[in-house]
Amino acid sequence: VRIGIVGLGLIGGSLGLDFRDQGHFVVGVSRQPHTCDRSVSLGVVDEAGVELQRVQDCEVIFLCTPLNALVKTALSLLPSLAEETIVTDVGSAKTTIVEALEPHCPNFVGGHPMAGKAERGIEVAQRGLFANNPYVLTPTAATPPKAIETLRHLIDQLQARYYTCSPEQHDRAVAWISHLPVMVSASLIQACFQETDPTVLNLAQNLASSGFRDTSRVGGGVPELGRLMAEYNSAALLHSLYQYRQVLDGLIQQVEGQQWTALEGVLEHCEAHRPDFL
Amino acid sequence: VRIGIVGLGLIGGSLGLDFRDQGHFVVGVSRQPHTCDRSVSLGVVDEAGVELQRVQDCEVIFLCTPLNALVKTALSLLPSLAEETIVTDVGSAKTTIVEALEPHCPNFVGGHPMAGKAERGIEVAQRGLFANNPYVLTPTAATPPKAIETLRHLIDQLQARYYTCSPEQHDRAVAWISHLPVMVSASLIQACFQETDPTVLNLAQNLASSGFRDTSRVGGGVPELGRLMAEYNSAALLHSLYQYRQVLDGLIQQVEGQQWTALEGVLEHCEAHRPDFL
Repeated sequence: VRIGIVGLGLIGGSLGLDFRDQGHFVVGVSRQPHTCDRSVSLGVVDEAGVELQRVQDCEVIFLCTPLNALVKTALSLLPSLAEETIVTDVGSAKTTIVEALEPHCPNFVGGHPMAGKAERGIEVAQRGLFANNPYVLTPTAATPPKAIETLRHLIDQLQARYYTCSPEQHDRAVAWISHLPVMVSASLIQACFQETDPTVLNLAQNLASSGFRDTSRVGGGVPELGRLMAEYNSAALLHSLYQYRQVLDGLIQQVEGQQWTALEGVLEHCEAHRPDFL
Repeated sequence: VRIGIVGLGLIGGSLGLDFRDQGHFVVGVSRQPHTCDRSVSLGVVDEAGVELQRVQDCEVIFLCTPLNALVKTALSLLPSLAEETIVTDVGSAKTTIVEALEPHCPNFVGGHPMAGKAERGIEVAQRGLFANNPYVLTPTAATPPKAIETLRHLIDQLQARYYTCSPEQHDRAVAWISHLPVMVSASLIQACFQETDPTVLNLAQNLASSGFRDTSRVGGGVPELGRLMAEYNSAALLHSLYQYRQVLDGLIQQVEGQQWTALEGVLEHCEAHRPDFL
């Protein structure tokens, strides 16, 4: 299959490496000439250039730009594509993307490979990044089965765990396990800085260990990514945030009311059911 | 120094191992005869028994029971001690403990070695558990300097990082970095179970990865420990919870109001200042 990849960062680059290993011909597009050169020399793509039209004769195109460039890039590219071209994206929010692109592209299928690294960019692209990690497709009633089949075959070649669901179900699920944790964790960091006694703040910083480190990790991640996930998945994120606040208020009331047995009951439920997510 | 350890679990046992290595004579007390036997055979103590009075001629006594047994155990023991006996504890909350015991014991000094493991009990006691970890003493204006000096010398022998502050400052600091994270993290687990669509909940469980795992870790910890820290540090914990809720509400308002630049600003502050705690 001739595969186009628009946006040569960690995700686009890692897709290129795996697809080339499988014998596909991979064409890359990046706005930065330097990134195009590096992608060819790193073996991420067979050829690359800055012109979107370079991928127009590909059979399958992966849109791998950041979320905020995705729709605009797609709308520039779509008019030059044949009707049968399959287009997918890798954004972490799906409803807004699918609603924007499906009317313009009969063979568009939303996608979300759930793999990542702390670092970004083409230099950290790696083989096998998606292996054993989830890769979600979010077709709609209008999506041609053949487009889903073709993408599923490619996803299998990545050795990823394939899931399919509606865009809305995807967005609610990732709000719970990916976007809500960022907000919860960032609020923890930010809350500590509300401490008004500098001695206590300093002591807290000295005493913090693995518990604080783990709970605060995703809240201290790349700000732009956190902002984009909130912006493009705001409806599902708000739903999760409201539920979270209600649960938190319940715990606060238990502490206020010294309902220690009830509090321990909630913590027992957490201990028992956290493994459902691991 | 003749050292007494009351409560032979992970912390008490690990103190015993290190102090014996330093040449001290260590006497242990546990309510369970089996634990006494194991402590002797594991080399954690020189001798052990179920009677509190067994430690009465020790120069320094470490109270290492769970928080909810601490004051009661101390009040049983104190009348049989000489006035110059130094007594300390290892509880994770200090104000309530110090207020309860200081009037009955002139040489009582609150303490908190901040080291732990997922497992509990004498079988997982280990040498060097406290090395490079914080060990906080919380003397008051009434504490004799000689008691602090003696304990500091022992803490140095554990190669722990020594800190000293008031009981109230300790409690506020650990509320931020240890007790609040448990509540924040437990609320995350519990919130996910508010999802009413079983397909979405199942999908969320399948898609959860390292971000969810880390953010939920301390919330899925031992329920009894979470309950005890809330119970014995409820004032400082509530203060932190209120501040946290206010910060969370601010983030929710930013998402509701689509204030993406302001949201990114908060996330930038988190990214920049999380390292202050690491």
